Amino acid sequence: MRMYDMIAKKRDGGTMTRQELEFIVGGFVDGSIPDYQMSAWMMAVYLRGMTDKEVAVLTDVMAHSGDMVDLSAIQGVKVDKHSTGGVGDKTTLVITPIVAACGVKIAKMSGRGLGHTGGTVDKLESVPGTRTAIEQKDFFKQVNDIGIAVIGQSGHLAAADKKMYALRDVTATVGCIPLIASSIMSKKLAAGSDAILLDVTTGNGAFMKTVPESIELAKMMVAIGAHNGRKVAALITDMDTPLGHNIGNSLEVMESMEVLKGRGPEDLREVCLQLAANMLVLGGKGKLAECRAMAEAVIADGSAYEKCKQMFAYQGGDTRVLDDYSLFAQPAAQYELLADHDGYIWSNDTEKIGNASVLLGAGRITKDDTIDMAAGIILHKKTGDFVKKGESICTFYGHTEKFAAAEEMYRAGLVYRDEKPAEKPLVFARVTAEGVETFA
Amino acid sequence: MRMYDMIAKKRDGGTMTRQELEFIVGGFVDGSIPDYQMSAWMMAVYLRGMTDKEVAVLTDVMAHSGDMVDLSAIQGVKVDKHSTGGVGDKTTLVITPIVAACGVKIAKMSGRGLGHTGGTVDKLESVPGTRTAIEQKDFFKQVNDIGIAVIGQSGHLAAADKKMYALRDVTATVGCIPLIASSIMSKKLAAGSDAILLDVTTGNGAFMKTVPESIELAKMMVAIGAHNGRKVAALITDMDTPLGHNIGNSLEVMESMEVLKGRGPEDLREVCLQLAANMLVLGGKGKLAECRAMAEAVIADGSAYEKCKQMFAYQGGDTRVLDDYSLFAQPAAQYELLADHDGYIWSNDTEKIGNASVLLGAGRITKDDTIDMAAGIILHKKTGDFVKKGESICTFYGHTEKFAAAEEMYRAGLVYRDEKPAEKPLVFARVTAEGVETFA
Repeated sequence: MRMYDMIAKKRDGGTMTRQELEFIVGGFVDGSIPDYQMSAWMMAVYLRGMTDKEVAVLTDVMAHSGDMVDLSAIQGVKVDKHSTGGVGDKTTLVITPIVAACGVKIAKMSGRGLGHTGGTVDKLESVPGTRTAIEQKDFFKQVNDIGIAVIGQSGHLAAADKKMYALRDVTATVGCIPLIASSIMSKKLAAGSDAILLDVTTGNGAFMKTVPESIELAKMMVAIGAHNGRKVAALITDMDTPLGHNIGNSLEVMESMEVLKGRGPEDLREVCLQLAANMLVLGGKGKLAECRAMAEAVIADGSAYEKCKQMFAYQGGDTRVLDDYSLFAQPAAQYELLADHDGYIWSNDTEKIGNASVLLGAGRITKDDTIDMAAGIILHKKTGDFVKKGESICTFYGHTEKFAAAEEMYRAGLVYRDEKPAEKPLVFARVTAEGVETFA
Repeated sequence: MRMYDMIAKKRDGGTMTRQELEFIVGGFVDGSIPDYQMSAWMMAVYLRGMTDKEVAVLTDVMAHSGDMVDLSAIQGVKVDKHSTGGVGDKTTLVITPIVAACGVKIAKMSGRGLGHTGGTVDKLESVPGTRTAIEQKDFFKQVNDIGIAVIGQSGHLAAADKKMYALRDVTATVGCIPLIASSIMSKKLAAGSDAILLDVTTGNGAFMKTVPESIELAKMMVAIGAHNGRKVAALITDMDTPLGHNIGNSLEVMESMEVLKGRGPEDLREVCLQLAANMLVLGGKGKLAECRAMAEAVIADGSAYEKCKQMFAYQGGDTRVLDDYSLFAQPAAQYELLADHDGYIWSNDTEKIGNASVLLGAGRITKDDTIDMAAGIILHKKTGDFVKKGESICTFYGHTEKFAAAEEMYRAGLVYRDEKPAEKPLVFARVTAEGVETFA
């Protein structure tokens, strides 16, 4: 087999076989296929596409290019969750305890933040003492003991994906549904859960900018799951504005705890309930309406919050901060960003808000940056809200010298108008193996 | 400007500007743009195409990536000629003296053979003493003195093309009309002639396999010329069988001299007359029929042959061999390849014949191979001829130990049938700035 022929085949619109995909992915990982051939092949994939079956096989091959986590030591159905990323996207912190409190096992590996989107592992570590680097056997024991563990990614999951992504990132082949779908799903297949709920964020703060392309991506990922023996469902959620009010690591933990305590902002609560209900459906707990009621019940009776505290405690975290937020590491300073016009906030570039938060120290520009756990933003006025000139739009937290750059970034994305923008749903669609349900 | 954005633009079907093409070609030549980005961009070009204008600008930018030959020191119209390559394709040896004998200046740089196709410079050097590495000022003086010089390529013409071709060759982006057209024409623009006649060979021994794709390529090259102030015309000629009977360096010189002496095989003579006539049209000598008559006249009166001898003599060649072929270096041995069936030769893979000739020592597999000038093949029976079992199809010349491999290669491309194949024209079409004329 020669890579030249593989490129020519895809260039001419052919469908790669499993054997061919194993040759391509294996050769790229072991270095026998050079970058310049792989990038030509990926551009051909970008422009010629792939069949559902072909993407499913590619994903399986990519998953097997690294460690495959075997969760069979954990009893019961294991449900994983993945978000395609966003700003203020703290749903994992809310829904995993809800789902675990309802009796579905959560054995989840999460990532760290990079660029304008945050990462669950960083948020967990803002609770003092919390360990996220946990040995596999301790991970399994924790899930068997208390039904939930959310830890950092260990081992080499889907080694091919990391190398392919780095090349796509510099060759304009990132925004390609088959390659996005295989990248996400290869890691999820390798992570070993029986079922996976996908939160496909959509809008100016997300990777996918429009609902139709998000639905297309979701359908492909559901199909990948079906071909590879995993139950997959997806919600298409709004990321034209950050979710909730808080952005930054400990700030997002606080807001998540508010939802688990039966309070918190309505948008975050609603999205979390829908995500949790869908995870419970995947976990075999019943129909969607019943699962939604279950999720509401474990918030109402406090058992979801207790499950969350139990998880932090098991992983060494000081859970007193969850009851008393003043015990979190405190920010060096704060700063009010004031409206410079009267009017409705017509739009508010979510990626710029995310970047402003990174500039405050809440995230990383490069992998080696360290994080200020207390840094971030609390939003007081979001898209659709009316503001008067001089009123606070948001509060910045962090070191004083960082406020100017963050303010410039934040204001660059802010558009005021006299008119109120149309309201949009929080969840645009639900995609399952049965089909697509859209919510106007 | 970032290469990432250039890739994304072409990926999405955009048209590159001159400034962008200068950035891409310049960056690739100086190494600031890595192979993996260039290969992704070229695959996007392959699949998205380029406008005529865009290809013309790309070609000009590629031409300017190396030395631009300035032929203004030579008086009069200079006409160049290029063939897309073939087996037994010795037309340059025949037509350049014809055209020069008619008073149009030939200041031509030619290449060496590689793979199954031969090269004019090797053929010239089969005449003992002939120099092909000639300083530019001597080159100009020769053309001013005698109206003709055919020499080896010197300097760095179209540096970008060499690097781009090497990458296309390993990334399945060779067979792309805009990239083929810009590759050929960048070198022709750099070589400095006012007008260029293209011989686009078509068939199993050529790069282009079908007449429609050859016409498409020819039209694009004519358009590149028009955009860049050069007159360009093209003939689409048959290469489903070798041209003439002789393949190999001194063997092809002999056959070319036969045509110049008013003899030689009819197919070779006819194609050469048409090519020469078209070069004369480009050189401003009149209408096609008049130019054809002029070409015939300079053969008939011996002045074309004299011009050829004059050129070899000027370049140091021993012209006695042109009158007495027995003075050429002689082959070590010869071998008759006999028909193993009665029947018509239905087809005869021309590339395999070319490769058989290379195996006999007449060509190079890699650039560093040395050539046996006397080696080659004389065809006695070509496609469409009837043969009886045991009759000689061709004679091999070269070293005895090379005959077996060459025979195996030759026979692998030979197909006999009881039926005679349909006759085909030698020239399928003529493409000029005025349009396409096809010959059924």
